Amino acid sequence: MEIQYYFEIFGVIFYGISGALAADEKSGKDWFGVTFTAFITSLGGGTIRDVLLGAYPIMWIKDVNLLYAVLAGIILAAIFYGFFLKLRKTFMLFDTLGIALFTIVGVEKALGLGVSPVVAIIMGMFTAIMGGVIRDMMINELPIVFRKEIYATACLAGAVLYVVLEQLGISRTPNFFISGTMIVTIRLLALRFNLSIPNFKSH
Amino acid sequence: MEIQYYFEIFGVIFYGISGALAADEKSGKDWFGVTFTAFITSLGGGTIRDVLLGAYPIMWIKDVNLLYAVLAGIILAAIFYGFFLKLRKTFMLFDTLGIALFTIVGVEKALGLGVSPVVAIIMGMFTAIMGGVIRDMMINELPIVFRKEIYATACLAGAVLYVVLEQLGISRTPNFFISGTMIVTIRLLALRFNLSIPNFKSH
Amino acid sequence: MEIQYYFEIFGVIFYGISGALAADEKSGKDWFGVTFTAFITSLGGGTIRDVLLGAYPIMWIKDVNLLYAVLAGIILAAIFYGFFLKLRKTFMLFDTLGIALFTIVGVEKALGLGVSPVVAIIMGMFTAIMGGVIRDMMINELPIVFRKEIYATACLAGAVLYVVLEQLGISRTPNFFISGTMIVTIRLLALRFNLSIPNFKSH
Repeated sequence: MEIQYYFEIFGVIFYGISGALAADEKSGKDWFGVTFTAFITSLGGGTIRDVLLGAYPIMWIKDVNLLYAVLAGIILAAIFYGFFLKLRKTFMLFDTLGIALFTIVGVEKALGLGVSPVVAIIMGMFTAIMGGVIRDMMINELPIVFRKEIYATACLAGAVLYVVLEQLGISRTPNFFISGTMIVTIRLLALRFNLSIPNFKSH
Repeated sequence: MEIQYYFEIFGVIFYGISGALAADEKSGKDWFGVTFTAFITSLGGGTIRDVLLGAYPIMWIKDVNLLYAVLAGIILAAIFYGFFLKLRKTFMLFDTLGIALFTIVGVEKALGLGVSPVVAIIMGMFTAIMGGVIRDMMINELPIVFRKEIYATACLAGAVLYVVLEQLGISRTPNFFISGTMIVTIRLLALRFNLSIPNFKSH
Repeated sequence: MEIQYYFEIFGVIFYGISGALAADEKSGKDWFGVTFTAFITSLGGGTIRDVLLGAYPIMWIKDVNLLYAVLAGIILAAIFYGFFLKLRKTFMLFDTLGIALFTIVGVEKALGLGVSPVVAIIMGMFTAIMGGVIRDMMINELPIVFRKEIYATACLAGAVLYVVLEQLGISRTPNFFISGTMIVTIRLLALRFNLSIPNFKSH
C-alpha cells in the first residue's frame, strides 16, 4: 500500500470524528442521526467526486475499509467526547487536517484519471468540502462556503499549488506534504487573524 | 417477469401516493409541485442507489413503467384523497409498505451486482430513505432520519436480516417476505410503543 | 462546431450572470460564495442530467470551456452589475433565455443517447431547473418549482413540443428555435398575466 492510502484512511477518520462532534451540537442527537451525519460528512465529498468523474466503483464500494474508518472515527468521538470537542474548538484539529488530506487525495485521484488540471483542482476542493455542504443542506444550516470564511478557498489554493508543483516535476509524496501544509497554514492563519473573503459588491 | 418486479412497481405506487399526500400537507400545493415531490420521493432513493453503484441505465430510464407507476400513485392520491390521508395517518400504510419493499429491492439489486454485503445493506436503506431525505432537503424540513424515530433503522435491520438469510441459503422470494415483514413489524411496533433511538451523548 | 454548441455556451453565460446576481441578493456576498453559487446554478442541471444518463465524461469535464463561460458570466455580472440587475428584474432576461436554451440542449443530448422520449423530456426540464433547485436547497430557500409559478412547466411544454416536432421530422435547428421560443413566450406570458398552476386539492 502506498502512503497516500493511509492519508485517505486518516482523512476519513478525522472527518468521521468531526462529523460526529458536529452532529451532536446541531442536529441528530441519537446514535443513528450521528452516524448518518458522520458518514455523509466524511464520505460525501469523495462520493460526489467519484460520481462526477465516473470513477466506478466509487471509493467506499471499492474499499469497505473506508466505511470502517468512519465507524472508528464515530466510536473514538463517543469515547473521547469532551477531549475531542475541546481539541476541535481550540485548534480546529480534525477539520483542518481532514480538509488538507482530502483536497490532495481528490486532486491526485482526478489527475490519475487524466482530466484537465482545472477539473482536478475542482475535484480536490469538492472532495474536501462537499460532504460538509450536503450535511449542512440536510440539517438546514447555511453551508460554511457561504459564510465568508477562508475555508474552501484554502483547499482551492492547496489544490492549485499541488497541480503547479506536479507540472514542475515534484514527486507525489513531497508534493502531498507541501500542498497539504499550505492548506493547514492558510486555514489556521485565517482563523487566527479572522481573515475573510472580499465582497462581490460593496453596495 | 419475476414477482420482484411487481414488488418494485407496487413500492413506487405506494411512495407516489405517500409523496403526493405529504406534498399537499407541507409544500407545493399546485399540481406541478405535488407531482415533482412525488417523483423525487418515490424514485429518488433508487436513483441514488443506481448512481452510486454505477448501475446504468438507472431504473426509471431503463424501465419507464416506473414513471407511469408514480403517476398512477399521484392520480390515485388525488381521487381517494381523504380516504388515503386517513389510512396514511392511522396505519402509516403506504410509507411502511413502501420502505419494506424498497429496502429489499435495493439489497437484492446491489447483491446482484456483486458488491460486499455491507454495501448491499447500505444500498437497501438508501433505496428506502433517500427519496424522502431529498424531498425534505428541498422543502427545508429536517429529514426524518434526524428525528430519533425508528425508521431508517428498521430498514437497516431488515437489510441485515436479508443478507444473513441469503448467506444461509434461503431463496429470494421467501427471504423477501420474511425480511420485508420484519421491517413492517419493527416500524409499526416503534410507532405503537413510541420507541426511539438512544442518544449519542446523554449530556 | 455546430450552432447548438454556441447555444449551450450562451446558456451557461446567461445562467452564470443570473446565478451571480441571485447570489448577491440572497446569500454568499463574498467572491467565493457568489462564484460557487453561479457555478452550481449554471452547471448543476446539466451535471445531474449527465450523471443520470451515465453520459461520461460529463459536460464540463469533457469541455472546460463551459467552466470559463460561467466565469465570463460572473465577471460580466460584476462589471455591469446595476444594468444587468435592472434587465433581470424588468425582463427576467437572463433566466428566461437560459431556461429556453438549457431545456432544448438537454432534450437533444438525451435523445442523442437513445433514451425514450419521456425520459428526454424530463432531462430537458432537469437541465433547465435542477441547478436552481440545488442552489435553493443550499441557501435554504424554497425552490421556485414549489412556488406555483409557471417556470418548470414552461420548460416541460417546450421539451414536449421539441420531441413531438422531432418525431414529425422537423430538423434540429428550426426545432430549437420554435421550441425555445415557446418556452420564452409561456414564461413571459405567465409573468405578465400572473398565471399560476391550479392546486392539487382545493381544500
